[in-house]
Amino acid sequence: MERLERQFDFLREIDKEKEIVRQNYLTSGNRKEGDAEHAWHLAIMAILLSEHANQDIYVLKTVTMVLIHDLVEIDAGDTYAYDEGGKATQRERELAAADRIFGLLPPDQGAKLRALWDEFEARETPEAKFARSLDCVQPLMLNHCSGGRSWQEHGVKRSQIMKRNIGTPEGSVALWDYARETMLEPHVGKEVIDD
Amino acid sequence: MERLERQFDFLREIDKEKEIVRQNYLTSGNRKEGDAEHAWHLAIMAILLSEHANQDIYVLKTVTMVLIHDLVEIDAGDTYAYDEGGKATQRERELAAADRIFGLLPPDQGAKLRALWDEFEARETPEAKFARSLDCVQPLMLNHCSGGRSWQEHGVKRSQIMKRNIGTPEGSVALWDYARETMLEPHVGKEVIDD
Repeated sequence: MERLERQFDFLREIDKEKEIVRQNYLTSGNRKEGDAEHAWHLAIMAILLSEHANQDIYVLKTVTMVLIHDLVEIDAGDTYAYDEGGKATQRERELAAADRIFGLLPPDQGAKLRALWDEFEARETPEAKFARSLDCVQPLMLNHCSGGRSWQEHGVKRSQIMKRNIGTPEGSVALWDYARETMLEPHVGKEVIDD
Repeated sequence: MERLERQFDFLREIDKEKEIVRQNYLTSGNRKEGDAEHAWHLAIMAILLSEHANQDIYVLKTVTMVLIHDLVEIDAGDTYAYDEGGKATQRERELAAADRIFGLLPPDQGAKLRALWDEFEARETPEAKFARSLDCVQPLMLNHCSGGRSWQEHGVKRSQIMKRNIGTPEGSVALWDYARETMLEPHVGKEVIDD
């Protein structure tokens, strides 16, 4: 009973992730995307696209990683990929959030999810590299479908996107080649500044 | 390349699930929940609560099932659990939707996801029964946290909730006992009509 209570304390708490709004728009352009929606999309991508990973990956581990990767934003907020000021303090804010949020769970489960989040952040294992590729390609897909609107609103440069995606081919060369060619290049010199 | 195109046709199409609004409110009560957010929550529940399933379950299968279980609502819309009129035509609308949406994928992947959706609908395997339990307990949790508001708005009776949850203990007696006692009973005679 106490175990169920701790599990539901966590499950109630993470409901807050749904209200964290990201900077990119949905494919329809009707509104911006929420964090939990983003994580849901990544989880389905992990299942369907694992065959394109550079290395064999354990799918359930990758799915779990992407489902929980943004929970720290409940306390730390969403840091836009091209907000250099926000990124300077992001790590510290997110570490404190991870302590609190994963600490709500029964200790064994909290430790497992925390280890997975640390692994995602370290970007060293095949699963973490692939999860990171998905986390970068999914917003490219949404930005492409919504006419590059979020790039335009933030005055994003091609060099910033390339820097952000420096690790994307480490998880999957195939995905990065496809995304760069079909989702990014059509917008360069239009909604994305060509520097 | 054609395979990636079909996979991304599907991944772009399912973005529409994010805009389907459910009847229950978020725990904060700030707004109603979206379908993709609901599926994300169920996926994390499947991972954390599988130990409470009546039978051993294959977690990745259950997670995949809950991630995709509402995709048919992109065409068929969300049918509120206590809308008896809508429920009469729900099955037909959802079958046509499944044909179209899973048909976007490469045939092998489309067939796999379609089979999982059919399995979820049939509610016969341990994974489908447990997924169904989660799908019923999660809105109880949100309704409880948001003060029973959605129940009150729809004039829901205790007998309707009990009928809706007739299969919930088939997936997990432990979860159903916990949910009934802590999430439903406190609202009976208040936001839920006691018949």
